[in-house]
Amino acid sequence: MQGIATDAFTGRLALEKVEENLFRGTCHPGAPLRAFGGQVAAQSLIAAGATVTPDRLVHSLHGYFIRPGRTDRPIVYQVDRTRDGGSFTTRRVVAVQDGETIFSLSASFQRPEGSPEHQAEMPTVAGPESPAAAWDTEDGDGVLSIFGSALEVRYVGDPGRGLPSTGQGPRQQMWVRVRDPLPDSALLHACALTYISDVRLAVTADLPHRSEPGVPLVASLDHAVWFHRPFRADAWLLFDMESPNYASSRGLTRGQFFNRTGELVASVVQEVLIRR
Amino acid sequence: MQGIATDAFTGRLALEKVEENLFRGTCHPGAPLRAFGGQVAAQSLIAAGATVTPDRLVHSLHGYFIRPGRTDRPIVYQVDRTRDGGSFTTRRVVAVQDGETIFSLSASFQRPEGSPEHQAEMPTVAGPESPAAAWDTEDGDGVLSIFGSALEVRYVGDPGRGLPSTGQGPRQQMWVRVRDPLPDSALLHACALTYISDVRLAVTADLPHRSEPGVPLVASLDHAVWFHRPFRADAWLLFDMESPNYASSRGLTRGQFFNRTGELVASVVQEVLIRR
Repeated sequence: MQGIATDAFTGRLALEKVEENLFRGTCHPGAPLRAFGGQVAAQSLIAAGATVTPDRLVHSLHGYFIRPGRTDRPIVYQVDRTRDGGSFTTRRVVAVQDGETIFSLSASFQRPEGSPEHQAEMPTVAGPESPAAAWDTEDGDGVLSIFGSALEVRYVGDPGRGLPSTGQGPRQQMWVRVRDPLPDSALLHACALTYISDVRLAVTADLPHRSEPGVPLVASLDHAVWFHRPFRADAWLLFDMESPNYASSRGLTRGQFFNRTGELVASVVQEVLIRR
Repeated sequence: MQGIATDAFTGRLALEKVEENLFRGTCHPGAPLRAFGGQVAAQSLIAAGATVTPDRLVHSLHGYFIRPGRTDRPIVYQVDRTRDGGSFTTRRVVAVQDGETIFSLSASFQRPEGSPEHQAEMPTVAGPESPAAAWDTEDGDGVLSIFGSALEVRYVGDPGRGLPSTGQGPRQQMWVRVRDPLPDSALLHACALTYISDVRLAVTADLPHRSEPGVPLVASLDHAVWFHRPFRADAWLLFDMESPNYASSRGLTRGQFFNRTGELVASVVQEVLIRR
């Protein structure tokens, strides 16, 4: 795994500062031979956040996966300080490898302010302590074990196997948290959630089509996250995922993260390419 | 209205080509004294699409509103041809005014391909012919009449007035179409939907809070659209809008566009700033 310790999650988000607005990192594989997109997005957000005063918290990001990233060489992150406004700070990051852009990110930061609130209701599900399978013990899959060494996952509603079965609707839910305690940095927790949000969301779009012949080839096309309230990624979060559309080989997926007290802490939308 | 005819919708999307990858346009106001964001986004998409072969259709866009745009001078659109890949084409557009970026857009185009499908079900609502109010006859509002001259709108569920009443939940639905027939260009219809998608989506987040003291100041922060299936924007579309979150003065809103046969043709997500 290219020198990345599998049990130190913060190491997966660590970047070397090369120059002002210029950073370098290395990613582990997600799909075979391809840098894990959630990590590329999280490292891009680390780079963006490193140029923003800590009193402004990230509230949204939008990214495009443009080319597959390699895991055998570093990725360079170039930050453009788009705007430092009165209430909001905007950053753009381009992730480059071999002279080509592999990922582009825009992110916005805000000084938190008080306002009335509303939020979607948390679905009623069994807690993470109920018996269920975890990836690292059940999957026997070399790629998933990379996630399993850093994340604890409990699927909701299928305690026998953990993985969704053939023929179900395009929805799945899981409890997830980073195994090791994370430092008290809102940016780091946001980056951890960004990493997590790309782990299983994409396949949600494939759930109704698993009986189709052939092996699905899954690739994330874009990724957007909105951060609503403070949260910890080393505490259990319910990740409620669904796919409202699949056509022309493209699936739209979306998810909501709730903490154990029922607060909606983040929303995510991703479009994925799934071909057989 | 700065020389823009109110009854020719296609004129609102017309750009002058200044040079290769460089375009110029003018926008009418949305909120007073500010260029209408949906038009800035739609013109950005026109610019992006002008650099892509027509056999590749836009399937997604992500934009950030960075600074308010002025309506008394042109906006320049600079297109970066990020990638022309085997299946997908990626473009980035920066909208500039007075030397500053007011809006940035990334968009992706795909050659349509066959695949299995699924989609969210269309809600059961009364059709657009049922009695309801239209903006241009009911609102008596100078800004809304700009939209009313180009768009036909029928709210669902409140035939008396058209506008949502105080104290309702964060959801609203409307039938909408461009008044005049549009040419047969998939890009133009996608740009028209992008324009439409910014007209009333933002205020969805304010519906549960309308009894709060003070006048709401509403500004779009970002905008994302995914195009799922071919459609016409000059035929009735049901725009089903909801807001799953509002906190720290930021509301998340999302919407789905269905055609009259129940096909899900596009999805949109926007975060908005609402302060009193």
